[in-house]
Formats: sequence, structure tokens, C-alpha cells
Amino acid sequence: MTGFSTSTARVIATMGSHSALQILDGAKREGFKTLVVATESAAGVYRHFGVADSIIIVKSNGDFFSVENELVRKNAIIIPHASFVAYVNSEELEGSPIMYFGNRRILAFERDRSLQRKWLADAGLRLPRIFKTPDDIDRPVIVKFYGAAGGKGYFLAKSPEEFYEKIRGYSHRSLTIQEYIIGVPVYIHYFYSPLTKELEIMSLDRRYESNVDSIGRIAAKDQIDINLNTSYNITGNTPLVLRESLLPRVFEMGEAVIDAAKRLSPKGIFGPFCLETVVTPELEFYVFEISARIVAGTNLYINGSPYTDIRYGMPMSTGRRIALEIKRAIEQGRLDEVLG
Amino acid sequence: MTGFSTSTARVIATMGSHSALQILDGAKREGFKTLVVATESAAGVYRHFGVADSIIIVKSNGDFFSVENELVRKNAIIIPHASFVAYVNSEELEGSPIMYFGNRRILAFERDRSLQRKWLADAGLRLPRIFKTPDDIDRPVIVKFYGAAGGKGYFLAKSPEEFYEKIRGYSHRSLTIQEYIIGVPVYIHYFYSPLTKELEIMSLDRRYESNVDSIGRIAAKDQIDINLNTSYNITGNTPLVLRESLLPRVFEMGEAVIDAAKRLSPKGIFGPFCLETVVTPELEFYVFEISARIVAGTNLYINGSPYTDIRYGMPMSTGRRIALEIKRAIEQGRLDEVLG
Amino acid sequence: MTGFSTSTARVIATMGSHSALQILDGAKREGFKTLVVATESAAGVYRHFGVADSIIIVKSNGDFFSVENELVRKNAIIIPHASFVAYVNSEELEGSPIMYFGNRRILAFERDRSLQRKWLADAGLRLPRIFKTPDDIDRPVIVKFYGAAGGKGYFLAKSPEEFYEKIRGYSHRSLTIQEYIIGVPVYIHYFYSPLTKELEIMSLDRRYESNVDSIGRIAAKDQIDINLNTSYNITGNTPLVLRESLLPRVFEMGEAVIDAAKRLSPKGIFGPFCLETVVTPELEFYVFEISARIVAGTNLYINGSPYTDIRYGMPMSTGRRIALEIKRAIEQGRLDEVLG
Repeated sequence: MTGFSTSTARVIATMGSHSALQILDGAKREGFKTLVVATESAAGVYRHFGVADSIIIVKSNGDFFSVENELVRKNAIIIPHASFVAYVNSEELEGSPIMYFGNRRILAFERDRSLQRKWLADAGLRLPRIFKTPDDIDRPVIVKFYGAAGGKGYFLAKSPEEFYEKIRGYSHRSLTIQEYIIGVPVYIHYFYSPLTKELEIMSLDRRYESNVDSIGRIAAKDQIDINLNTSYNITGNTPLVLRESLLPRVFEMGEAVIDAAKRLSPKGIFGPFCLETVVTPELEFYVFEISARIVAGTNLYINGSPYTDIRYGMPMSTGRRIALEIKRAIEQGRLDEVLG
Repeated sequence: MTGFSTSTARVIATMGSHSALQILDGAKREGFKTLVVATESAAGVYRHFGVADSIIIVKSNGDFFSVENELVRKNAIIIPHASFVAYVNSEELEGSPIMYFGNRRILAFERDRSLQRKWLADAGLRLPRIFKTPDDIDRPVIVKFYGAAGGKGYFLAKSPEEFYEKIRGYSHRSLTIQEYIIGVPVYIHYFYSPLTKELEIMSLDRRYESNVDSIGRIAAKDQIDINLNTSYNITGNTPLVLRESLLPRVFEMGEAVIDAAKRLSPKGIFGPFCLETVVTPELEFYVFEISARIVAGTNLYINGSPYTDIRYGMPMSTGRRIALEIKRAIEQGRLDEVLG
Repeated sequence: MTGFSTSTARVIATMGSHSALQILDGAKREGFKTLVVATESAAGVYRHFGVADSIIIVKSNGDFFSVENELVRKNAIIIPHASFVAYVNSEELEGSPIMYFGNRRILAFERDRSLQRKWLADAGLRLPRIFKTPDDIDRPVIVKFYGAAGGKGYFLAKSPEEFYEKIRGYSHRSLTIQEYIIGVPVYIHYFYSPLTKELEIMSLDRRYESNVDSIGRIAAKDQIDINLNTSYNITGNTPLVLRESLLPRVFEMGEAVIDAAKRLSPKGIFGPFCLETVVTPELEFYVFEISARIVAGTNLYINGSPYTDIRYGMPMSTGRRIALEIKRAIEQGRLDEVLG
């Protein structure tokens, strides 16, 4: 046992953004008190939906740790999500006494592109090739610029010549040349229980990105006429189910990621995570990224997905699944096993 | 109190098309008797789904008001939808003694493009620019023809020269030159309660239009080879959820529309309405249209949306929400406040 | 009455793939014992989701009939799906004593392209034109090769000249030249009850195919630069609802197919089936294919669709609807009427 006061840990808290509605709704359904740390403008949303028993107002999401003492005093368990990861400083989180659902050390691997790639490669997953120099380009590639908000200015090329032609006029100095895999995007939402050691498929989604998910509505000729450029800013998510015969492979990939994570950090990865894949016409999964926490695509499934409907026979969102895991951990006196 | 006989107003009625299944299903779930005015060919659908306690057959949807007396005698409350708005004559509606859910005077603003634009501009929303003359074209525009069924023949241009080149051979005399905003379509389904003065986000959708939502499946080269033209006829709707950090802005826009409506007509707008937006890569909402009544995209959420699942914790479609509002109004002796 | 032992027929069985999760889940919800015949690698999925009371392991799905005796001994009723149809040999099925839900004779019409076309034409449905010779091409066509896995190498043309230009270098000898209908794909999931003689609309979907459902995310210029080719391998499904005014036509088409099937085989078609359509901008349905059994698009609706939510007021997947039909048949002593 750790020093956590399990008997009083009855508050689930998060930052007011990304998937907070789902996380807080799920916590309430499992009987927890809830708390959200939000800006004044966001707070109205959480008030409206009635999911937060208490709201702590901060000036900006970056001030999350300014209320750390209050969170600790309230015995709140923090649920991380993408906005939390984006706004919170790594060192602050590492050194904080707050109770954190998941392994906070694994987040470093999500944040660092090359560590992440090492992790996924170590899991034996199929990754898009990275070209070290433009001169090696021998197939379609996407050229990505670091810090390009919403993926603006990314371009495709299929040869060194085309790369050098298109790169002119770009001022970015830091870029990646990644093999462009042509296939359909599939985001896989997993949940791994540290209590039962079981991996679950919660749901799947496809992102809805601006403007790239709208340009298909513009005829090719018109696209060329208006000299269209693409960008990849996430505006939402749409639901999908996967071809059933691909599920064994989906489980395999999830298990491989969990095994590899144990080699990175003793506690490994647990709770919700997501593999961002592209499925080729040959039905092979290429993995582009891993999110080591809940993803926004799960917001589609507040009342359950086709997969959780089968497994649970009751509404089970990923947010609720998190709360259920914490509840079980508390009941079994094993809270420390779900915190990290 | 008005002269409405609230004690006997227990029938919810609509025209048999658009979202009648949802409206009638929602009414039944809230304990109302239901009635649908439908053509013989449509009637079978309402019979099949068992949502209508009574069906009045008309020769065509345009004959709706031929059964006005029967609707009045039955104390039926009419729920408008897009087909109702399309088939029913404004003057007939204005002068009719039927009980009408919503503000019938606001529909004029939905019907009239320039009044509608005034309304949205007055609400401070971001609108696509309208070009008064082709010579002003300085960015991508879409050229729309009035009366072009299903948006057939709309074309894009990005300069006066291109406009004049493409307009040749068109016989339409009435057209609009609208800034073409490149971004993802998002339809926002609101509900404003005149009883509680609260604005709710019910759900979101994306239209499924023929052929424009299929051309992305045709390779660019092939599109050009077959000389593809686009059209925008609505065939259905697909679900989505929105990036959570955009919700504060979504509430703001809805509030602004409600405030502006009060300046147009004393009763303003209430009940369901929809903003048809395009979200740019910069995550700005451009508003193209407002529907001052239920939209067909809500048909996706007969058993609730992620948003209503959180707020209500029970299945709550927009159709049911309408019936709930009427029920509460009757219970509180305030029925006149939801009719207009 | 037939020789089926209705009193003991309490096991619903299927092959472990395609829509087995849904079929088994639906069977359990209706109180049946369930059995899945699966490969070792797939079995884990069915174990994980807890839908199978027993699992029979086979080396490959093609070995399904090697366990025929066991299925017969257990009084299992087999539910067919696309994988079953693909892996199982027609003659083996025809001659087998296993209890089979649906009319096994109608499957021959699904398997044979020309019989299927005859069936659909006989039902008076609108079909894409087939060109017997390239010289007749007078509109956009899609050229399909038999045995081209996942639709690889299909190409479009709009004239004999273009056909002859593009066909060079292809080694396939067997091909079809089909009119290319430009419009949105809509898959309609029907269920026809042989007990009540009623046709139901269960749900709708749109396939998610690799790579054709991702190429719209690539700008036209880039598509041309990388010399993109399309393919049509199914990776999943996404949900949709249909414009309500199209539902009368949807019922008509379903009824026409049922009537025509009775002329093909005495028992006709019953249980679930699907029309794969494209809806044009003029809102006309072109029918490309019929599936004479459950389709994977129904996997989206484990907990019901908007349409079944209205009709049933409780979660009703197509898988559960099958089990419900079998249950009612057993209760009414009419099991032979749902087997064929």
C-alpha cells in the first residue's frame, strides 16, 4: 500500500477541455464526486451539462498546477487527456504529489516523437518509413513541419526533384519526410486494466479535420483552379466499426504496445490509449502515433459503442470505464496500482 | 392566458415527411396522442413504424391546410419542419387559427435569404462575403443559381475572368456570388426553451449530399477525364461530435441568434433551430444558413446524442424535447408561451 | 411440421467472422445458447466479448463442414453471413442436414452475378447498364476485373478510345464494363419476416473502403503528382440516416425484391438482406448488388438504429432480430418456416 488515503479518494477531476464532459459524466455514473479545473469561458459548458460537482476557475489552462494544493487536499484523482498533456509542464507533473490516473512517466514517450517511434517499433508494429534525406525519396511522402499549427503547409512529393521544387519558399527549418501511406484512417480506442491484466477494445473513430475532410467535396478541376492547400486541424470525430476479421490483429497490436511499454517504464501503460492507424487496401495497419491517454474520438460513445454494448450490456464510455477501474481499485484496496 | 384550451391540447401533429417519425415518436414517448397528415404513399411509413395514432390522408403535402378545420377541432399542436415550410403557403399559415409550436413569424426570416442574412449579421456571426459584381471577385467563390434544384450547376471561380469564362452558356438570370469558405461542414442542432430561457446543444450532424459527398471517391484524374459536375441534393445525414474546446463558441453563437431574433419579432425564436456552419482550419465558424425549426440531421439521434445523453441521462431526441417542452408548458399553464 | 426437433433447438451458431459478434450477442439477448465455429486466432475475440457459450476450433474457416455432425447433434441453427457464404462450398451446404436460417437455395443467386442481375431486373429495380462491348461506351463506365482482390485496378473511362488506351497492359481476361453512376452509396438493411409477412427497415450504412474512402483527403494536384490508383477493400462501416421522403421508395424496392424472389425459389427470400445502392442527385436509387443475408454494416447497430429504436422502443440489432424470429417460430411451432 502507498500513502494514498483510499478511503477518502472519491473525487475525480480533470481539466475543462477535450473529453472532460465524458470523463466527468462517467465518474458521476460510477458514483464519484467530480471536479473540473476550467477557464471562465469553458466553465459554462460544464455547468450547463451538470457534470461537475465543483468547478475551480483558472485564468488559463496552463495554470492548472496553481490549484495543485486544492486538488491534493480534496484527494482528487486527476484524469489526463490531450489538453492536459498539451498545457501541463512535464517537470511540474513529474514532481507533483497529485494522484494521477495512469503512468505519468509514459507521457514523456507520447510527447517525444523519436521515443514514441522507438516504442512502436519495439512493439513490432508497421510504421511509415522516415526518410533521413530528401535524396532517398523513392515513393510518395508527406513533408511535415514541426510547429505547423493544424498541419498547415504539409505537402506531398514522390521524388527528390519534386521535394526540392516544392520546398522552395518554405522558411521552416525543422521537417520530417514521412512515407505517405494511402489508406483509410482508423483510430483504435483501447483500455488496459492493470487490475485484471485484460486489454479491451472500447471503440473506434475517424477524425474530422479541417480542411482535409472537406476537400473531397470540391471537384478536382475546381481544386486545381483555386490552388487548394490542405491542412489537418481537428474539429471533431465521426463513428465507425471495423471489419470483424481484423479484430484479432487489433488485439495483437494492443498487446504488443503494452508489452513494449513495460520495457520502457516499470508500470508500463494502462488505462485508455489509442493507436492512430491507416489501413491499406491490403488490410495492413500502419501505425502513425500512440496516445497514452483518452482520445477525443471516444466522445462519440458517451452511451457506449457497439463493442462495449456487447461486452458490458450497459452504457460504458471510456470515461466511465476509467471511473469503474478506479472504483474497483478502491474497493480492492489497490488504488496505487491505477495511479502512477 | 390565451384562449387555447390547454386541458384538451393533447395531440401533436405534423406533416408526413422530413422528421415526422422523430417528432411523432418523441410525442408518444412523452405521452401525447399523435396525428400525421400524409399522402397515401407516405402514410405506409408512419403506419409501419407505429408512431401515428391517427393519419389524415391528403392528395399532396401542399394540401395541408385543406384539413385545417379537423386539426383545429382536434386541438392539435402542429410541429413545423423543412417539408412543412416548403409546402405551406406563408399567408395561409399566418392567418390560420391552428396551434403552432414555435414562432410562425420567424419563418419568414428563414424563407427570405436577405432577411436571414440581416439576422445572422445582426447577431455578429461570421458570414461568407457576398460579391455584388463579378468584377470584385478576389478569392474563391461559389456561384449559386436560384431555383437550381439540388444545387445543380453551381460552379467555383477565383477571378472575374474565370467567372465570365464559366458563366457562358448558363441561362439562369438570378445568381449569387458567395465567398467559398474551405473547411468542414458542421450542422449545429440547438433547442431554446422559452419556459426556462435556457439554450441547449442537442446534437450535430453533417449532411450526406448527392453527388458532392461521393466525388471524393473518384480519383482526380478520373474526375477530370469524365468531366465531373457537382450537385448538392440532400440524401441523408451522418453523425459527429465536435472538438470540446469549441463548445463555448457554439453556445455564444446560439445565444447571439436568440438575442437578435428578439429584435426581429417580439417572441423571437424558440424551440429547435440549426446553424449551418463551415469550420475553417483556423477553427473559425462561418455561418451559411439558419433553420428556424427542427432539421433532418436530428433524425440520427432518436435515442439521444452524446450531448443529450450527458444532460438528460435518458434518450432525448429533438422531437421528444419538443414534446417535453409542450408538456411542461401545459402543466404550468403556459402553453401560449410555446406557441406563436 | 418437419422433422426438426423444435423443442431442443436452442443453440444459435455461426462462423467466427464478419458479424458473428452481433449474431451471437443478439441470440444471447433473446435467451439462446450460442456456439461459434472459429479459428484459434479468431476465437480469442469471441471469448473476450463473452458472446459464445461454446467455441469449436477449426483450422480454417473453410473447414466449417468438418464439424457438421457436432452442429447437427447440438441442434444448432446456423446463421449465414458473408464469410460463411465465401468459405462454404455451395454443394456441401445444399446437401447438408444442418438447420439453416434463411433459404439456402437463394444464396446461389447472390453468388452468381448474372442470376443476381436477373433477379433485380425482374424486381423492376434500376440497375447500372452493362456494356457488352467497349465500342458501345457512351458515358462514364467503371471497368471491373473478376478476381481482382479488393477492387484493385478497376478503372474509369468514358469512351471506347479511352477504354482501349487504359486497358493496355492489363492481363485480366474477364472483365465487366459497367455504367458508372455518380451518386452517394447507401446500403439498406432489410428484414423480412416469414412469420408475419412484414418487411422492416432495420438500418442503413455506408462502407468504409480502402483506399477509395481516403483519397478525397489528398488534394487533386497531389493525387495526380503521385499517380494515385483506387481500390475498394472493405475495412469498416459508418452510420447514416436517409432523407425521410425516400423511405416509401425504400419499402417499395424491398417488397419488389421479395416478390421476385418467390418466382426464383418457392421459399423466396426471408430474414435479413441488403440492397447496395447509389443515390443520384435526382434522388433515384441505382441497385448494384443484393446480399441475401446479414451484412456487416449492421454491426454499427448492436444497440439498435434510429429506425429500430422507433419501431421497437428497445435495442434491436439485426442479429437480435434474427434470434427473435427464431424464438417466435419455435414458440408458434413454425420453426420450419424460418429454415430453408
